[in-house]
Amino acid sequence: MPISTETQHDGLSILSRFSEVRRFTEYLMEPLEIEDYVVQASPDASPMKWHLAHTTWFFERFVLTPFSPAYRPYDPRFDHLFNSYYETVGKPFPRSARGWLSRPTVKEIWGYRQYVEEHVEKLLLDNSTPLHSVWPALEIGIHHEQQHQELMLTDLKYNFYVNPLEPVYRECASRQARPNTNNSFEWETFDGGLVEIGHDGQGFAFDNEGPRHKLWLEPYRLASRPVTNGEFLAFMEDGGYHEVSYWLSDGWTTVRREGWRAPLYWEQIDGEWYYFTLSGMRAVDEREPVTHISFYEADAYARWAEKRLPTEAEWENAFASCKIKGNFAETRYYHPCADETGGVESVYGDVWEWTASPYVPYPGNTPLEGALGEYNAKFMANQMVLRGGSCVTPASHIRPTYRNFFQPDKRWQFSGLRLAEGC
Amino acid sequence: MPISTETQHDGLSILSRFSEVRRFTEYLMEPLEIEDYVVQASPDASPMKWHLAHTTWFFERFVLTPFSPAYRPYDPRFDHLFNSYYETVGKPFPRSARGWLSRPTVKEIWGYRQYVEEHVEKLLLDNSTPLHSVWPALEIGIHHEQQHQELMLTDLKYNFYVNPLEPVYRECASRQARPNTNNSFEWETFDGGLVEIGHDGQGFAFDNEGPRHKLWLEPYRLASRPVTNGEFLAFMEDGGYHEVSYWLSDGWTTVRREGWRAPLYWEQIDGEWYYFTLSGMRAVDEREPVTHISFYEADAYARWAEKRLPTEAEWENAFASCKIKGNFAETRYYHPCADETGGVESVYGDVWEWTASPYVPYPGNTPLEGALGEYNAKFMANQMVLRGGSCVTPASHIRPTYRNFFQPDKRWQFSGLRLAEGC
Amino acid sequence: MPISTETQHDGLSILSRFSEVRRFTEYLMEPLEIEDYVVQASPDASPMKWHLAHTTWFFERFVLTPFSPAYRPYDPRFDHLFNSYYETVGKPFPRSARGWLSRPTVKEIWGYRQYVEEHVEKLLLDNSTPLHSVWPALEIGIHHEQQHQELMLTDLKYNFYVNPLEPVYRECASRQARPNTNNSFEWETFDGGLVEIGHDGQGFAFDNEGPRHKLWLEPYRLASRPVTNGEFLAFMEDGGYHEVSYWLSDGWTTVRREGWRAPLYWEQIDGEWYYFTLSGMRAVDEREPVTHISFYEADAYARWAEKRLPTEAEWENAFASCKIKGNFAETRYYHPCADETGGVESVYGDVWEWTASPYVPYPGNTPLEGALGEYNAKFMANQMVLRGGSCVTPASHIRPTYRNFFQPDKRWQFSGLRLAEGC
Amino acid sequence: MPISTETQHDGLSILSRFSEVRRFTEYLMEPLEIEDYVVQASPDASPMKWHLAHTTWFFERFVLTPFSPAYRPYDPRFDHLFNSYYETVGKPFPRSARGWLSRPTVKEIWGYRQYVEEHVEKLLLDNSTPLHSVWPALEIGIHHEQQHQELMLTDLKYNFYVNPLEPVYRECASRQARPNTNNSFEWETFDGGLVEIGHDGQGFAFDNEGPRHKLWLEPYRLASRPVTNGEFLAFMEDGGYHEVSYWLSDGWTTVRREGWRAPLYWEQIDGEWYYFTLSGMRAVDEREPVTHISFYEADAYARWAEKRLPTEAEWENAFASCKIKGNFAETRYYHPCADETGGVESVYGDVWEWTASPYVPYPGNTPLEGALGEYNAKFMANQMVLRGGSCVTPASHIRPTYRNFFQPDKRWQFSGLRLAEGC
Repeated sequence: MPISTETQHDGLSILSRFSEVRRFTEYLMEPLEIEDYVVQASPDASPMKWHLAHTTWFFERFVLTPFSPAYRPYDPRFDHLFNSYYETVGKPFPRSARGWLSRPTVKEIWGYRQYVEEHVEKLLLDNSTPLHSVWPALEIGIHHEQQHQELMLTDLKYNFYVNPLEPVYRECASRQARPNTNNSFEWETFDGGLVEIGHDGQGFAFDNEGPRHKLWLEPYRLASRPVTNGEFLAFMEDGGYHEVSYWLSDGWTTVRREGWRAPLYWEQIDGEWYYFTLSGMRAVDEREPVTHISFYEADAYARWAEKRLPTEAEWENAFASCKIKGNFAETRYYHPCADETGGVESVYGDVWEWTASPYVPYPGNTPLEGALGEYNAKFMANQMVLRGGSCVTPASHIRPTYRNFFQPDKRWQFSGLRLAEGC
Repeated sequence: MPISTETQHDGLSILSRFSEVRRFTEYLMEPLEIEDYVVQASPDASPMKWHLAHTTWFFERFVLTPFSPAYRPYDPRFDHLFNSYYETVGKPFPRSARGWLSRPTVKEIWGYRQYVEEHVEKLLLDNSTPLHSVWPALEIGIHHEQQHQELMLTDLKYNFYVNPLEPVYRECASRQARPNTNNSFEWETFDGGLVEIGHDGQGFAFDNEGPRHKLWLEPYRLASRPVTNGEFLAFMEDGGYHEVSYWLSDGWTTVRREGWRAPLYWEQIDGEWYYFTLSGMRAVDEREPVTHISFYEADAYARWAEKRLPTEAEWENAFASCKIKGNFAETRYYHPCADETGGVESVYGDVWEWTASPYVPYPGNTPLEGALGEYNAKFMANQMVLRGGSCVTPASHIRPTYRNFFQPDKRWQFSGLRLAEGC
Repeated sequence: MPISTETQHDGLSILSRFSEVRRFTEYLMEPLEIEDYVVQASPDASPMKWHLAHTTWFFERFVLTPFSPAYRPYDPRFDHLFNSYYETVGKPFPRSARGWLSRPTVKEIWGYRQYVEEHVEKLLLDNSTPLHSVWPALEIGIHHEQQHQELMLTDLKYNFYVNPLEPVYRECASRQARPNTNNSFEWETFDGGLVEIGHDGQGFAFDNEGPRHKLWLEPYRLASRPVTNGEFLAFMEDGGYHEVSYWLSDGWTTVRREGWRAPLYWEQIDGEWYYFTLSGMRAVDEREPVTHISFYEADAYARWAEKRLPTEAEWENAFASCKIKGNFAETRYYHPCADETGGVESVYGDVWEWTASPYVPYPGNTPLEGALGEYNAKFMANQMVLRGGSCVTPASHIRPTYRNFFQPDKRWQFSGLRLAEGC
Repeated sequence: MPISTETQHDGLSILSRFSEVRRFTEYLMEPLEIEDYVVQASPDASPMKWHLAHTTWFFERFVLTPFSPAYRPYDPRFDHLFNSYYETVGKPFPRSARGWLSRPTVKEIWGYRQYVEEHVEKLLLDNSTPLHSVWPALEIGIHHEQQHQELMLTDLKYNFYVNPLEPVYRECASRQARPNTNNSFEWETFDGGLVEIGHDGQGFAFDNEGPRHKLWLEPYRLASRPVTNGEFLAFMEDGGYHEVSYWLSDGWTTVRREGWRAPLYWEQIDGEWYYFTLSGMRAVDEREPVTHISFYEADAYARWAEKRLPTEAEWENAFASCKIKGNFAETRYYHPCADETGGVESVYGDVWEWTASPYVPYPGNTPLEGALGEYNAKFMANQMVLRGGSCVTPASHIRPTYRNFFQPDKRWQFSGLRLAEGC
């Protein structure tokens, strides 16, 4: 599948989009101390300075190097240090050792960012290279940086969480639900039949979102909102973490090995449940969507509730036409909200929703040519698809066809679930 | 999905089927020394005596205990020792420690088998319990024992393989292809469209095979035979195990960690390739289907060949009406054969074929009630489906709808691949 | 240090000694089922059939191969399979995989033993090789087989222990203490000063026991008997396993990682303590020496008791002149005894006593030449010395200068402790 | 052994000593970027900011808390964060996670240091507490901080080493040997006999250095200088890392597992050997003492050279009366020097010398009372003694009786060896 690109671009408008995304990265880093950029508390939670450098390396490697013949790398050694996993363009520095590097300093990395930005700007404005050849990789780079904006917040949350000092990223008021909110949910029915999902090639999409293709769906129902903390607490209080029959075999092994008895970041203090947020420790709000659960926990909850998870096709078929609005990174809560309204009108944002679908290629899918083909395709094993974006996803990054994916035991993302059932 | 059962059974015909399967287990064990029953060279490769006892425990636990009120267990401690993974009916003895148990002796286990068989016989013939209530669990038990017949041979092969003395299970001549065999293959084309797959409930099937359901297939082609050793050697010689771009990320990690450079059981001696078989070491026959490869290797081969693996729906849609004949356990080669004919007329047997499909429930699927629901359902994560049966599968055990499943890094099964492509 | 050898040997008397030891091995194996020879429940607990073959290999490798030019190995592949750790004479088969080998069968291994014995016999009687050149290696081989007699019993105990069926090796009555036994102990005082320890070269000793050398000891006291189960229970009941201040740092790490709260083989049932013995489960006898404790536990107990462990020099200086009598393998209890008398008259047997001394070479020590130098010398790191022999040591195997050694976390040997203090 | 303390102290002179040591810590940190304080590239190599805080915590915990009743901790949570391993005064934060903590910031830790210093100053000068009661713990704290000065440099070296950018700590010229230096060494002979070693209680010593005690030494010889890089290269070129017979069993296992083929920090580039130093990569200087080798490598080298390592008693008996001068941290080379003179006149500094002695208590030794007893005593298992101090040891920190100790596989300290032999 050739990647879809928007037509009719001029250098200035591209540059403006590029700048906007780069500035948002800077905004996200504003509250940090230099030390906060360095640490990596798990192989999954990369250091902030690595994210800053890697997103910049992406433009250097895939835009400047191929399209700007006179470009001279800022530091040739960065090509090794800040390559994440592109094996076909070099030897990536080991992921789990990213937190061992005190150098380059944060200041140097900001310098690297500026240097590369200036060269991208020059490339876009000097007319020596046709924009239509630069744009595909540049556009991916912009979306790539947005992906990492989300990862920066999820990784920072984890890196702060392991610290007994419980650092606060930003003091954000949580959005209060109206006191008399009716917190129940509706079942929405969908007819199914021979439907189509997947990206049709109009506008940007990652290579794993297409091609648009037919599939058959039996009639089904979806809950009008994700499962809440209150509902998940009922599962916990009913012994959900201790009853083997709710769990997939691999899930049960994980529960016992890790000693899970609540979502990640939850802590029980004097009988009350609290969780760590990017604004510090807070009492659990029962009306918010539950988050920081693994696929295994989402699946076990659904089995306990005598329902199931939706497939990604059911999800997309139901919500493709919904407006993309909701609680995203730009809302600046950095935490799911207790929603007043619910309903399929607000399916995007708040929490990524685990689906029942393993992450595999769509029929007829072809990855991008060259190293960028490694972006998505090589992870198509042992991962599950999540849909809808979260409270730390940039709003302009999400699409109805967007396929996020993680291993079924991961919990550090803002991941939740929505119930489904057959008709 | 209620499990399908055959109608109109009388006790004698059931008993005859039961006996036939039990006798075949005994036949398979005939060549063994007592010591051969004891060892377990990996967590996957259970001891033979464990298989003998576990398949017997299955009848005790799911047939005699519920349906024969007067039945007194042979030894109550066996319920712990020989439970494989049924967490809801007790605490299974740890899988990786099965090879630590010298007792009960092989002789005692044969006694256990006889004791349970006599009680099953009594239950079937004394008319105190209606056969239609006994039959569903008994039928599963019979198919369960057939599954373990296959596992006994695959596990024995592994347990012999680690031994530098290279023990021979049975001296079997390999089936010779006719010298002038044309070893090329054809592409068979299938129209796809709105098709149905899955078991329709007529006759026996495992609970994961149904319900029969609609799905949409784009037109596709399948190779008329599995990939051969000769073809796989070409991949190896082309550097397939050393070129990252052919591999899924998890596959590449596995290749490097395990040092894979050939299928399991292959060894290079003075530049020539040999493999260990149940009849000892042999020179690799290039015309045979390649086997003992993981999903990762199957997938990498397909990418190298610029093709792909079929989905399980494509496979079943193509071959559902083929006659089930081929090289099975009863053929007594215990090794894939260099086939003279090929073609879709002989798709069953020889090697299990990895598909591109993760093992997930079919739409509308419901596992069996109670502990037998653990049989298949709880493994629906991180595994891939294989189709078609192998040279150590009992012929009467396989069906067009049969879904075998293993983790993508497993190689000790007789697993191979067939190429597919879109039209 | 040249190994000491007895002078004036004739072939017949040597053969008689050789036969006597070989027959005792056979006696020890008598109660076993074939399956009992095969299993290995931990890397430490080798299969019985491996012990039988390895002790035979030792004679083949170090006696027949060098001294019997016409000797043809029973099976050349055994040189790899049954080499324990002699890296300079080949590549030993991995220790932790000894339990993966079903072949050679037990019967074949008995055949191997007989074959090698006949050739040793021929070598001793046919006068073609001078006995004084054969004898040093043969004598080591005899003592080596005695070492393995002890290991066979300790390993068998462990391999039986992991089996929920609790197999019994031999039904042995425990020796009853006289009812009115006074179970207290005395402190024996030793002057120390400039003393000598180590083997003087008269008669057989391992190469690690010499040379005899001077050292200075401050005056000290030793308990007249080892610590008993009753005393160790007091430590346990006083929270000994939960109080960090009694433990070496590595010991505390081990206690927490392994979850230790009692010696190996102990189990609490309805508030009472039992232990697994070679005669099955028994209630703990408080008057017996405590056994199956690690160095860490011995050391922690001594610190709790406000005493210390003796050094090996203190031990040998105190007990070198004591008669070697006590509860050994020949007593056929295979378990420490509740002793009626105590006192330094019975310091040998019952339990190996952990000392405070790391296992290092004596001043001026030289290992044997060649591969036999690997016998003891290469283990002189990270191990502690034990003294005195145990209830499964052959009586004729022990000497006052005998240095046994194990890693400080090992518990599967019959290891206990004796208290010491300064004056 | 009661810890020895210097008599006749007044508050001002104590304060001056305290300040001097604290200032040297600051000097050592001067070249660092903030990021350099944060990282921890192995569990052994703690972050610089952790060292700064921990050495301060030591004074807070063992001086201010017990002796300054009005003292209010800077931040009570630091008692958990900066406790290294004192289990009896709280729960230490896990060692391997020290590099996960971005907070407190470096600036806050400098604030913590100042706060505690001011309170120590006040305590020393305000006469409310008798100095003789404060001094013992304060004196240990001063020596403790010196120990960490050495660790800061060794840990920083490791943390810089893993970084492909090869950061330079300080550009230090290496001391050049005079061109015509005779680099051979002499054998110094010592009579031995009944000698005494250990600290006699006059002046400061750690609790593991006493009591002074008698022991017997056979006559022996020591090399007049440590083994050089040139000599060690000869061992390497003779296949030392590949020949099993030179190695202890645990050492050989380590060599193969870790793939060692040279000392830590060595790298071969185009056939030439280089090593990473605190001043960057440099060509190996053959005349310098070899360093960054494990005990296993030191022991293997000695065996290859047909010599042995000295015991710590031999070392101390030989060098107790030598003047303490040489290449220490104050010399500011931070690297061993190619020495012009050699001889027993300069045995201190340059490299810690592995001895043949396991780290065990001296006869009659008693650890300090209370938590400070954990300082040294609980590590007396599985470690080997090193003597003499290194090029990063503060000169005033070393003593003839000083016993350093590390596990035999550790290489990140400046550790080398000196040969010994019997007479």
